[in-house]
Parts: sequence; structure tokens; C-alpha cells
Amino acid sequence: MYSFTNDYSEGAHPRILQAMMEANLTQNKGYGLDSHSDHARELIRQEIRHPEADIHFIPGGTQTNLIVIASALKPYQAVISAVTGHVNVHETGAIEATGHKVLAMDTADGKLTPALVQQALDSHTDEHMVQPRMVYISNSTEVGTQYTRAELEALSRICRLKGLYLFMDGARMGSALTSPVNDLTLADIADLTDVFYIGGTKNGALLGEAVVILRDELKTDFRFMIKQRGAMMAKGWLLGIQFEELFQNNLFYDMARHGNDMAGRLREAIAGCGWSFASDSRTNQLFPIFTHEVIRELAEDFSFEINQKTDEDHCCIRLVTSWATTEAGVGRFIETLRRLS
Amino acid sequence: MYSFTNDYSEGAHPRILQAMMEANLTQNKGYGLDSHSDHARELIRQEIRHPEADIHFIPGGTQTNLIVIASALKPYQAVISAVTGHVNVHETGAIEATGHKVLAMDTADGKLTPALVQQALDSHTDEHMVQPRMVYISNSTEVGTQYTRAELEALSRICRLKGLYLFMDGARMGSALTSPVNDLTLADIADLTDVFYIGGTKNGALLGEAVVILRDELKTDFRFMIKQRGAMMAKGWLLGIQFEELFQNNLFYDMARHGNDMAGRLREAIAGCGWSFASDSRTNQLFPIFTHEVIRELAEDFSFEINQKTDEDHCCIRLVTSWATTEAGVGRFIETLRRLS
Amino acid sequence: MYSFTNDYSEGAHPRILQAMMEANLTQNKGYGLDSHSDHARELIRQEIRHPEADIHFIPGGTQTNLIVIASALKPYQAVISAVTGHVNVHETGAIEATGHKVLAMDTADGKLTPALVQQALDSHTDEHMVQPRMVYISNSTEVGTQYTRAELEALSRICRLKGLYLFMDGARMGSALTSPVNDLTLADIADLTDVFYIGGTKNGALLGEAVVILRDELKTDFRFMIKQRGAMMAKGWLLGIQFEELFQNNLFYDMARHGNDMAGRLREAIAGCGWSFASDSRTNQLFPIFTHEVIRELAEDFSFEINQKTDEDHCCIRLVTSWATTEAGVGRFIETLRRLS
Amino acid sequence: MYSFTNDYSEGAHPRILQAMMEANLTQNKGYGLDSHSDHARELIRQEIRHPEADIHFIPGGTQTNLIVIASALKPYQAVISAVTGHVNVHETGAIEATGHKVLAMDTADGKLTPALVQQALDSHTDEHMVQPRMVYISNSTEVGTQYTRAELEALSRICRLKGLYLFMDGARMGSALTSPVNDLTLADIADLTDVFYIGGTKNGALLGEAVVILRDELKTDFRFMIKQRGAMMAKGWLLGIQFEELFQNNLFYDMARHGNDMAGRLREAIAGCGWSFASDSRTNQLFPIFTHEVIRELAEDFSFEINQKTDEDHCCIRLVTSWATTEAGVGRFIETLRRLS
Repeated sequence: MYSFTNDYSEGAHPRILQAMMEANLTQNKGYGLDSHSDHARELIRQEIRHPEADIHFIPGGTQTNLIVIASALKPYQAVISAVTGHVNVHETGAIEATGHKVLAMDTADGKLTPALVQQALDSHTDEHMVQPRMVYISNSTEVGTQYTRAELEALSRICRLKGLYLFMDGARMGSALTSPVNDLTLADIADLTDVFYIGGTKNGALLGEAVVILRDELKTDFRFMIKQRGAMMAKGWLLGIQFEELFQNNLFYDMARHGNDMAGRLREAIAGCGWSFASDSRTNQLFPIFTHEVIRELAEDFSFEINQKTDEDHCCIRLVTSWATTEAGVGRFIETLRRLS
Repeated sequence: MYSFTNDYSEGAHPRILQAMMEANLTQNKGYGLDSHSDHARELIRQEIRHPEADIHFIPGGTQTNLIVIASALKPYQAVISAVTGHVNVHETGAIEATGHKVLAMDTADGKLTPALVQQALDSHTDEHMVQPRMVYISNSTEVGTQYTRAELEALSRICRLKGLYLFMDGARMGSALTSPVNDLTLADIADLTDVFYIGGTKNGALLGEAVVILRDELKTDFRFMIKQRGAMMAKGWLLGIQFEELFQNNLFYDMARHGNDMAGRLREAIAGCGWSFASDSRTNQLFPIFTHEVIRELAEDFSFEINQKTDEDHCCIRLVTSWATTEAGVGRFIETLRRLS
Repeated sequence: MYSFTNDYSEGAHPRILQAMMEANLTQNKGYGLDSHSDHARELIRQEIRHPEADIHFIPGGTQTNLIVIASALKPYQAVISAVTGHVNVHETGAIEATGHKVLAMDTADGKLTPALVQQALDSHTDEHMVQPRMVYISNSTEVGTQYTRAELEALSRICRLKGLYLFMDGARMGSALTSPVNDLTLADIADLTDVFYIGGTKNGALLGEAVVILRDELKTDFRFMIKQRGAMMAKGWLLGIQFEELFQNNLFYDMARHGNDMAGRLREAIAGCGWSFASDSRTNQLFPIFTHEVIRELAEDFSFEINQKTDEDHCCIRLVTSWATTEAGVGRFIETLRRLS
Repeated sequence: MYSFTNDYSEGAHPRILQAMMEANLTQNKGYGLDSHSDHARELIRQEIRHPEADIHFIPGGTQTNLIVIASALKPYQAVISAVTGHVNVHETGAIEATGHKVLAMDTADGKLTPALVQQALDSHTDEHMVQPRMVYISNSTEVGTQYTRAELEALSRICRLKGLYLFMDGARMGSALTSPVNDLTLADIADLTDVFYIGGTKNGALLGEAVVILRDELKTDFRFMIKQRGAMMAKGWLLGIQFEELFQNNLFYDMARHGNDMAGRLREAIAGCGWSFASDSRTNQLFPIFTHEVIRELAEDFSFEINQKTDEDHCCIRLVTSWATTEAGVGRFIETLRRLS
């Protein structure tokens, strides 16, 4: 049984584990105030070319989303998201639990547009309704798509014009940035957003996300929020060490590219067998549509998520690759599919 | 200028004011523990034929909604509502501010159906998503429609089957129950829901809503919730006195019926002039569609809410009548419209 | 049975009811946007000599406290209060329900001092603890004491120095300002605090508190908070009318002075009989200490709250007077006590 | 410079790291549904002799506290804690951020007693105040003390009698259970509490706490709460592996005992030099009182927390040992202190 269920089925890249091993018995300051975390922050600041950015390491993505959003909004303010946005669906109401409404917009492809943002603004006009104040996007998105530079610039423009914070969830940032059709860099993203995060958990770290805050007013007292929501790790240097490794020698990009390469092979083979996709993804998540019978057969040797039916006979599944996906696993999947097609 | 903007433009029915006047210098117990409140509770219990019901008086509708919902749900649970539901749109995120997601379902006519409830359940299946636990409906709805007995029975059935609480927002309950097409009584509603409220504010009281709790587990410590959310009036007997008057001598129904009658006259006249409606309402809110020019002309003598455009040339407005709407006001509107049509 | 249980046992001053009666059938704008509310705001602005103040009318005190505090604080910030402060004890955790800790300081007399504020600051120094950001005081306090001008100036000074908002709960502001030992005016209070409220409910209105916001940053979007917490009355002009009456012809002060006069008579008589007090109050709440037997006897003809035991044989009770307290009631109490003493 | 600042200055016991290394490339189910977590649960169930217990692994202590408490309480309910309790002071208002008041009781030694619990109940008697519903204790406590079996039995008794949940924070459970004066076992604690957790982070794991739920009604939907608060680790097996190691071959106890042994040596030497302690600790936290000069000198070679002044000349510091504390470090400290004393 080989798993394409998600990009967090294995542990961490061996170099990361090695670095943790080596530092294991050194005494460190707690709570992210250690030298590894400081060094990792420096590496990221160089990468994004924003020496003034504040950078915090947080164990997981849901925590990061809820802390960033709750930190930025006043009680009556809301965040605009795609209906498919992780904060809208898959976090068990984590944002609402901090008191804020998620204004969920229907999208064609998991991506918000200036028109959708404007539509949310137009329908929230006075104190009887929540006040939209932040735009949440994910890159790559939950359906595997990604923002182009032009699209991000357009979103950034309307956000600045309308006084909305722009927040990018980068749980799968690595996959987005190393996609064959990507034209963005981390430095661009830092230029165009107010706050974003770089995902470690889904790209070869044991755990950890790096929040990058560009906008000054969002920096204030951010550590209070991290602590209050239980996200300030006692042994915070464990996150620092991992991001040191990720941003030395291109490990972050190399791992993500491997995941995309593996997905690319699957994509080509699936299309080659004549199957279509629910979403046009060039990242590490694919959403092919198969017949129920093919899915049943595949499921005997591979694990993956089964999503919604697309018609009576067909269903969409999700295949996820990662830094750890093996060529052998991918090869076997392709072979099996060819046999079934 | 005559106003059809809402059903709370005037104060209270003179009999209600008179009763308050008479009791003004008597010393009462505070916080709803007085004899007027007790008597009003008794009158309502008789009306609904549920002697075991718990009844609480709360100053306003948003408070009532947020208290009932926050009281019933665990932190990870959500309430299902029509997209047009008051709790979803017009309460500035009051429900989310208590930590709960509103699962908003698109509807044809502002009414939830068993199919929509099932759809919400089907898309929320594990701990990565909120858990639907309550169904919120309003009667009459925000678009003027109302539930039939058959519809409410069907909703009640699925709620009981699936372990969902059924909560009816009755801010405009009077108008629903006295509508010419109504086939429900308060006693039916008490049979079919777990908790509901009877609106006073929009039906001739100065302020006040009567929450009726049928389900035992929802009764526990409800007064703690009322107090915590700032809804326990020091001079609680003021609410008691008003509901005493409302439920003596049919005042509640008489006032609502007057509002419906006035709306009925408007409805007939508008249709008679060849205009159509955005919603098929037989209650005290009408949503006629006029040309921009007609609206501009009407707005010179009448005030009302202008809702969304329906096409380039037309727009929907909202006309609301109440116990206080005068025949003269209605007559003038009809006359003006006939001239313009 | 005559009640000294609280200052909200009767309705409203007849002039207030009269004004409501007269305006009853006039159509008004909803939600506090009407001309009565505007006029009442103007009267209060004149009284406090701060034409730039924002003024909002809110139905009750707990709501007012929670809205003001939740509006001012970021999620990790806390409010400093006396242990006896209403927000700390008697609001069922309303402040905590908005997410904020109340830092409760032991006091000698229900009043905060600069030293106590400094002590709270000294023990909250980093992101592992909440951040004190607001000081909450009540005037008169829950134990009947009141702030002198010098005391309030000293508190105001430390608050401005340390970047703390100063918020005065004036549920019993009338009684404080008309006390024989008072040396403050509403204008002084507006000079020295950032936000305060003027209590109507406990001083002859049916319901209603007037929030006065002096500090600009606290003004922003305050109506969103009012709405979200269910405190925006549909028939908001009812509050406006009442505050119009309160601040025309000195009614606010006259009613409060009457309550204080009645308390003064009780105070003198109680002391004259040789009894002592748990608190040195010159306002409308007295805390005499009697033997259990005397309390038992008094309780046959009068109702009042019984507070804590002061020793084996004695107990403290609370006597509250108001605008509606009759000379006859006070006379009877004095007579009874003299007989028992 | 040798650090006695806390018990989380180093990484994890080498056996733990080794186990993580070995499992690194195996594919696991996410979110704690893997076989390592299941096995660790089984080991803990055996240890506590409660096969019916629910066990969940959560990354950190603040998260664990807020999830357990928010999961158990209704919105108007409160948790009783010692003033020194971690949830009261050192979590930046994490509990209040979930909406609940912490009722903080002054204690002699960081430990709650039945009398203190009763006192909290006696002062919270109606719906104008929060309703105490849970008792929070830590073992060992924040001042290094620990509960005896008799003390825990007494607390358990009053909690069951009064309908209060008893929750033990075991962030330093290992140190408590291996203290020379301990007479409790994990099985006893499971018998006597409703929910508790076993701390990994402060006892040789990289991160992780094991929540043990005994009371059925607290088990329901607990994973929803974990997810909502961002505490459901994608790579949850990392926690499972660590607790497998901790509860195989006594590693959990051996590490804690080492920390206590090191503290015991320090304790004896400090007392031998004639210094006293602010708290009578037999666990891994010591609170010796030194002169400012001695502290200054010690601080040149050792790091530690400086707590409050005890008089003009003296101050209390905190020394913490752990599984990783070296005999050399302890020896050097003793030597230095002897020189200074």
C-alpha cells in the first residue's frame, strides 16, 4: 500500500533530523528567543529582501491562521476567503472560535479576484453587517491552483486601495513557488502582501510554519497572541533549526520541486490515459476524475482521499505528492492506472 | 413623508403604555422575578399549551438569537441558516462573536428545507469541520415568506432524526400567524420546535422578545447566559407587563393582523398596477419591483428601504407595515403609485 | 413591606413617561439615529463641555461595560478593576466572555489608586502574562464610596503616563455627583477619563445608559460593537427621549439628590442608634452592620440584601434608596430601628 | 554559563530521537490516527489501569489547558485555580480568551484544598456570578510542591460531592511522581480525577502532553476541540512515538527521577550553606532565597529566573533541573555557592 493521501505522511528531511540531533544537548533559550531561531529569521529576511520583516515560528497551520487573523481584526471585522479556503472549511470553525466571520466567496478555481473582493465589500456596507478587513488567500490553493504575479498584484492593489489586509496562507508555498508555471518569488510575495506564512510541515519539516509580517501595525505584540493561543513552543529552537536547514542550500525549494516533479509525472500519465481533472493543478495536489470502478481498483494498492462525485459514474480523488514521494511509488501507480484504463 | 421603512417606527400600543403607567410606582422585584413576568409567562404557557415550557423575556432580537444559540452549542458546533437568515447577515457577526459558525444555505424563498439540512450534514462529516447541531429558521422570514405546517413538520422530523435542535426566530411571529395563508398556531410551533421566540418589538411593544424553551437540556442555567450577555433587564417587569397586555384579549394577534391587512391592501394595489414582487409575501413585508424612476418619485413622499437591483431598469424595495400603519398612509401610497404607473 | 433592595424597583420619573407617551405615535428613525437621541446627545455634550465627544445610548449596564471594554482591548489585553468592581463579580463573567481577563485588585474601600494600578503593571511584564491596558472604576462604587477630584486626577495621570485607558462606570453617577462630599462635575470626569457612562436605569429612567467617548481611537466603529452585542435598540429613540428629560431642567441631578437625601436620613438615624457601617458611604447605598436579631426583625417589614457576616453576631446589610424612595418608607424604617436598638 | 532556567533547555532523550529517526521515512496516517499513537495510548492505559480512558496527544501545555477547560465548561462556568496556577498567571489569559473566568484562590503553598474550593462555591451562588464547575490543580505545582494521596482524595471527594470536574495539569507530573515524598501513582490519579495530563515537554520529549480523560461526558467530540484550537498535529505520530518511548522501560520515571536527584543535591547544599527556601519543594524546582550580592555572583556563571524580593536584602530565585541536568553543572553551582556563602 503506497499513500498519496497527503504531504505529511513521512517525518522530516534527513538533513533536518541530523541538525536537530547535533543540537540536542546544547542548552537553548526557550520560546523562540534562541540563536537558531534568530539565524533562521535572518535567512528568511534575506530571501524575501525585507530586512524589516518580523518573523515568528508557529507549530501548525490552523494555529497560524487563527493567530494572524484574530490578531489583525477588531471584534466586528471579517475575513474574505474563497469558499474552498482552508479557514472556511477545514479548520472546524477555528476562525469563528476567535469571534470572526469568514465571508466565503464562490470561485471558479479556488482563487479570489478583485471582483470577488469588491463584491464582498459591496454587500457589507453598514454597522448591521460585519466589516470586511482582511483578504485570505492560499498559495498554492486547496484545489492545487496558484496565483500568478499579475493576479497577486491586482489583489494587492485593491486591498491597499480599500484598506484591507492581504494575508497569504503558504502551507504549500514551496509547491507553488517551484511549479513549472510559477512567476512569483518570496520577495514578490513580501512586496505584495501584509502578512504571509511559509509552510514547513507540508514541505519536509517535522512541524512548523514561518509567519512573515510586513505591515508594522500587525507586528505589535504578536508574541502575546502566539502565547495566548498556545502556539509558543517551549523548545522553540526546534522550529528555528528546521527553518535554518530549509533556507540553507535551497533545501526548501529542492524538496518542493521534487514533490511537483512527482505530481507532474502522475499528471501526464493520467492525462495520457485519457482521464480529466477537476482542477488545473501544476502543484503537488492533483484532482483526477475516474470511474468508481477504477477508484476501487486503485484503492487496493494506494491510499488517497476520495472527494465528491462528479456524475453518476465518476468521482474526483485527490493525489498528493511531497519531498518524500518515491519514484517507485509513482511508477507503480502509473503502471496500475495504465492497466485499468 | 410617511414611513414604510420598518415595523418599529412607532412606540407601543396605547394599552401597553397605559399598563406601564399604572404600575410605575409599585415596587417590583428585579431581573424578571416579578409577578407581572410570572403572569405573562402563565398566559403564554396557556397559549402554547405547554405548561412545562420555560419562558424568558429578553430586550431585543439579536441578543435573543445569540443567547439561544451560544447556550445550545458546544464550541465546535454550528448553526444551519438560510443565507438570508437574520443571524447570517444582519447581526454584525453576533453569532460568530460567540464563537460559532453559521452554515448559510442558499434557498429559493428564505426557507430551509429537509433537503438543505441534509446537504449541510452531508458536507460536515468529521472533526476537521464544524459539527452542525442546530437549525435556525425565521417565521415569517426576512423575505416575507412563512412556513406551512407541513413544512415545519418536515423540518422538525429531520431535526429530531438527526439530533439537531430546531430554533425558530419569531421576531415577526405575529405577522406569520395572522397571515391569510397561515395554518400554524403557537401551540403547533411549541410542539414542533425545541426553542422559539415571540417577537414584541416588531409587534407593538416598546421592546422585548419572549423566548420559549421546550427542550429540557436547553433550559438549564439559561438565566446565567441572559445575565452574562447583558440581557437581564434590571427592571424586568417592564417586559412582563408588555407581554401580559400582548397575550390578554388577543392584542398580539389583533395588532399583527392589522399590519397584514395594511400590507394586503398595498399588495393588491401594486399587483393591480401591473408590478411584480421579488418574493411571494403574505405577511407585513412586501418586496415590489419598480423602475428607478417610480422609486425616485415614491421616495419623495414615502420612506422605505431600497434593496438590490433586479435588472438595469428595475430595483426591489421593501415596504413594511405594522400595528401602527395608518389607512391614510396606505391610501396615499396607493394613490401615488397609481398616478405613477 | 417596603423595599430598600435596590434603586430599580420602580419604573421611571413621571415626566419621562409623559414624554414617551407624547412621542408614541410619531414615526422615528430606528437604531438611535433619530432626532430625540441627537438632541439628548447635544444636551449631554453641553453638560460635559466636550462638543467633540461621541455619545451612544445602550439599554443596560452589563452590556455597556462589556461593549466598552471589548471594544478597547486587543485579545491579549486586560482590564484592571477593584475586586469589588461590578465587572469582576456581578456580571457572570461578561468580560471574560468577550475574551479578556479582569485583573482584580484588593482595595480598602472599593476604589483603585495609582499604587494599585502600578502594582498590576509591575506584575505583568512580558508576553507570558496578559497586558493591562484599561483601568475600570465605578463612581459611586459598589460599596457606596466615591472618587474625589484629587483621586481621579491622580488616576488619570498614571493612566496617561502608562498608556492605560481610564473607564468610569457611572451606573450610579447621579448619586456620586450629588453626594454632599462630592467635588467633581461631569465636565471634570470628561476631562479626566477616556470613556465613561452616565447611568439612567438606576436613576429614574426605564432603562438606558449614556456612553461618552472622549478618546478618538475609542470612537471608531463603536456602533458596530453595539450592534454585534445586541445592544442597538430598534426603537432607540426611547433611550433618547429619556436622556432628553434627564438632562433638561436638572431632572438627573434632582432625582439623584433625592435618593442621597433619603440615604442621609437613614445614615444619621442608624449612626444615632449606635450602629456602625462596613463602608463610609455618602451616596445612595448604605452598608450598616446589625445583629442577626435586628436584621430578622427589620426583614419583617422591609426588604433588603443581606451581605456577609462581619462576626459571629453581626452581619452587614445593604440599604439602597433612589429617586422613588418615599419619606414615609424611610420614616417607618427609622422608627422600627429605633424601637429595636 | 550553565542554565537552571527551566526544564526545557535541551532537546529530547537520545532514545526518543533515535525512535523518531527510525520511523522517519515510514508512511503514517495523519492527525494522531497512526499506530504509534495507538500503541502509546495502550501503554498509558496499562500504566493507569483504566482501559476505558480516552487519551489524546497535544503539542503543548497551554493548548492542553485551554482545550480541556473550554471543552468542559459552558459559557457561564468558571474554573477554580490557585492564584499561582499556570492558567491564572502564565498563559496570557488563554483561558479567558476561550470565554471563561479563572477563580483564583490565595493559597499557602500553591495547592488547593477542600476549604478553598468550598469558599469559591460559597461566594458564587446565583446567576449574577459565574458558576464554578471545574477545579484546576497542578502536580507538581508552580512552586514545586506536590499533592499527597490524602490531599488528592479530599479534593476528589468534594469535587464529586459538589459536581465539579477535577483537572490535574501534569506538565511536571514526572517530577511529582518520582519525588522522595510522593505517595501517588498515575493509577491513583486516574482514579481520583476526571481528566489530567502527563507532561512530555518538561520531561525529555521534544514536545507533547498526553491528555487522559476518565469522565465519559468529557470524552465526547474532544478531537473537534483539538482541531479547532490548532492542536491536532498533521504528523501526530511524532507525539505517539515519543510517548511510546516514555512509557517503555520506565524512561518517563527515570528521567524525572534524575531531575529530582539533581534538585535534591542542590537543595541539600543550599540548606547546608544556611540558606532558606520560599517554598518547600522536593521536586525539580527550587526557590532558594539569597542576598542580592550572592545572586549577582551566581548569575555570572549560571542562568536562572529571579523572582520576587523577599525583603530589602534578599530575593528568591528559581532553579530548575531536568533529565538533562549534568552532575558537573550541579557540582559547579554547589561549589560556587559554598565559596560565596
